[in-house]
Amino acid sequence: MNNTANKPARMAKLAGAALLLYAAAADAAAPSQGKETTMTSPALAHYTQDLLLGEVWQRSGLSPRDRSIVTVAVLVTNNQVFELPPYLGRALDSGVKPVELAELITHLAFYAGWGKATAADRILQTVFAERKIDVARLAPAKVAPLPLDQAAEAQRANTVAENFGKVAPGVVQYTTDALFRDLWLRPGLAPRDRSLVTVSALVAAGQVAQVTYHLNRAMDNGLTETQAAEALTQLAFYAGWPNVFSAMPVFKEVFARRHVH
Amino acid sequence: MNNTANKPARMAKLAGAALLLYAAAADAAAPSQGKETTMTSPALAHYTQDLLLGEVWQRSGLSPRDRSIVTVAVLVTNNQVFELPPYLGRALDSGVKPVELAELITHLAFYAGWGKATAADRILQTVFAERKIDVARLAPAKVAPLPLDQAAEAQRANTVAENFGKVAPGVVQYTTDALFRDLWLRPGLAPRDRSLVTVSALVAAGQVAQVTYHLNRAMDNGLTETQAAEALTQLAFYAGWPNVFSAMPVFKEVFARRHVH
Amino acid sequence: MNNTANKPARMAKLAGAALLLYAAAADAAAPSQGKETTMTSPALAHYTQDLLLGEVWQRSGLSPRDRSIVTVAVLVTNNQVFELPPYLGRALDSGVKPVELAELITHLAFYAGWGKATAADRILQTVFAERKIDVARLAPAKVAPLPLDQAAEAQRANTVAENFGKVAPGVVQYTTDALFRDLWLRPGLAPRDRSLVTVSALVAAGQVAQVTYHLNRAMDNGLTETQAAEALTQLAFYAGWPNVFSAMPVFKEVFARRHVH
Repeated sequence: MNNTANKPARMAKLAGAALLLYAAAADAAAPSQGKETTMTSPALAHYTQDLLLGEVWQRSGLSPRDRSIVTVAVLVTNNQVFELPPYLGRALDSGVKPVELAELITHLAFYAGWGKATAADRILQTVFAERKIDVARLAPAKVAPLPLDQAAEAQRANTVAENFGKVAPGVVQYTTDALFRDLWLRPGLAPRDRSLVTVSALVAAGQVAQVTYHLNRAMDNGLTETQAAEALTQLAFYAGWPNVFSAMPVFKEVFARRHVH
Repeated sequence: MNNTANKPARMAKLAGAALLLYAAAADAAAPSQGKETTMTSPALAHYTQDLLLGEVWQRSGLSPRDRSIVTVAVLVTNNQVFELPPYLGRALDSGVKPVELAELITHLAFYAGWGKATAADRILQTVFAERKIDVARLAPAKVAPLPLDQAAEAQRANTVAENFGKVAPGVVQYTTDALFRDLWLRPGLAPRDRSLVTVSALVAAGQVAQVTYHLNRAMDNGLTETQAAEALTQLAFYAGWPNVFSAMPVFKEVFARRHVH
Repeated sequence: MNNTANKPARMAKLAGAALLLYAAAADAAAPSQGKETTMTSPALAHYTQDLLLGEVWQRSGLSPRDRSIVTVAVLVTNNQVFELPPYLGRALDSGVKPVELAELITHLAFYAGWGKATAADRILQTVFAERKIDVARLAPAKVAPLPLDQAAEAQRANTVAENFGKVAPGVVQYTTDALFRDLWLRPGLAPRDRSLVTVSALVAAGQVAQVTYHLNRAMDNGLTETQAAEALTQLAFYAGWPNVFSAMPVFKEVFARRHVH
């Protein structure tokens, strides 16, 4: 063991091989339409091919691109690294740009937890390598930010500071400095898409308490009610029925309140 | 990398090897009674051998078969693929039929999220291969359904449609068509066992809001109060104490209401 | 496949190799300050190096040792095995003793679920092997327990028995016998540190309903309000913002009630 541990170069090579193996493992049963499935359960293969890929992904109301964003957000949030490669490929095929995938994963570092994003980033690396996607073309770390809605942000910051400024000053500080005045303003992923990622992550994590704020923000950012409703259909399959049934009452109330105004 | 990626056959072989490695990794520290443990922590080894395997699994109130169903449901729900092989083996050894395991995993595609089921299905494949279990003997994708309780289903469908028909029509549609008029009626896994799987998944995911409906359904399907209570003991160990402490008040209320009627 | 399966010794060797590969995979992108990052996303690399490692980990209010405990607790709870190796190393480097790590993982068998702990224990094994840490020096399975606060424990046991004694007698029995009269009294990890592990696991799992009891217990065990608040900052990054925003109201109320008394 020590002999191996002392040879970082060889380790890195082995690590790369291991990642390829994971990718292959996932790819072997990848949900590509028309491809012969290698699933054990005939019923699962049937539902995957005929119902999920053959029907749900083709539904109007939410584009394949948006369905990919929802699905990748769920897989990253649930740390499902082995399932990521085919869905990252599908995302690229349906129009999600490489920079958008990199930003999506970075966004989830904050909204799903750091280690889930770094793990997903390594898988993304193997997918980019296979497709010869030039990482140098991604948005750099420091970019000119999108314009900030000063009034809305002041109100948000004020509410959070009043509620939690004395409870967890560090959280309040980074919520403003790192999230709403930095991450959310990065131009590599549109605010509407960041919101779709965030809401998907919240539903996947069963975090309904945070859905009201973020679903309203999503709709302020341009997500339509039809798209939000159809995102729930996609989420039912990828995040599981229970998470969606717990989120639906919150979606219902947000929709209703927005109708009144 | 591309050289390898262009050779699907070789990749599939490597993927199979990788899965075997995962299985071996899990198996090395598999909780088989009497076998010398390879655990690092003496305390964890002690609790595993003497408390969990030596005592909890032997408790009356819930059969080893049912404990296996609860445990596998937790591991699939929590995406613990590395832990699955020994418990899938234990399930087969305690009387869970191969077709029941395939159906259990398919059931969880809907109740835990798609990718968790497809990942578990791949692990199931390696376990079946090692035991030379003929996959062709599993229930086919299309089967004659169990009889439907029309009245109960009409009431369920009506309630859900009233609540959420306008919020998320796609979810409501598939809840009826794919879940309650299709999946739940597949004969490969008894409704009582599907309910045990579902309730276990809900507790493991911390989805207490959905427990009331599904625990009642489980008991309507034949799960006794003693079995439900003892499932909580099994869940405490495999899904963790906090999930069970959050679920117990809901179990308590469901039990109490059923006593009144 | 069977040929391989019949040779346990070779399998164990392969399993060890597989674990080394996982470790290497994680290590390749390990968040060690000053080391060149291999991340795909420039923004994620920037936030990791400059914000998380360069700033958050250096904040006063919570020691690097305690931040390691919080972080490892999150990774075990979320089953993020690939991310564990560098953080277990960081924990050892910042003063967490080997025996404390073994006890931390054992503690989480009960508070996060058994399989998550056994998976983490295997990763710990590889980290100990690389560092030539002698496992024989860990606390044995049976140890002289810390003194029990009889009055507090009687009150806790009484409340739980009254609430749930008839609902899930097995859970109530093991909560007393295995948890509060055994696990919590093991001297290898101080009660204050067990509490920090438990609270971190609760926040990471979104189990806010259990935070009130355990945060109070943590503070009774010596965790200061400043440390608890700063643990929330660490948790925001590693367990994700949503879990922390759902936990903050509970922290706020616990802090407020303790100020009154």
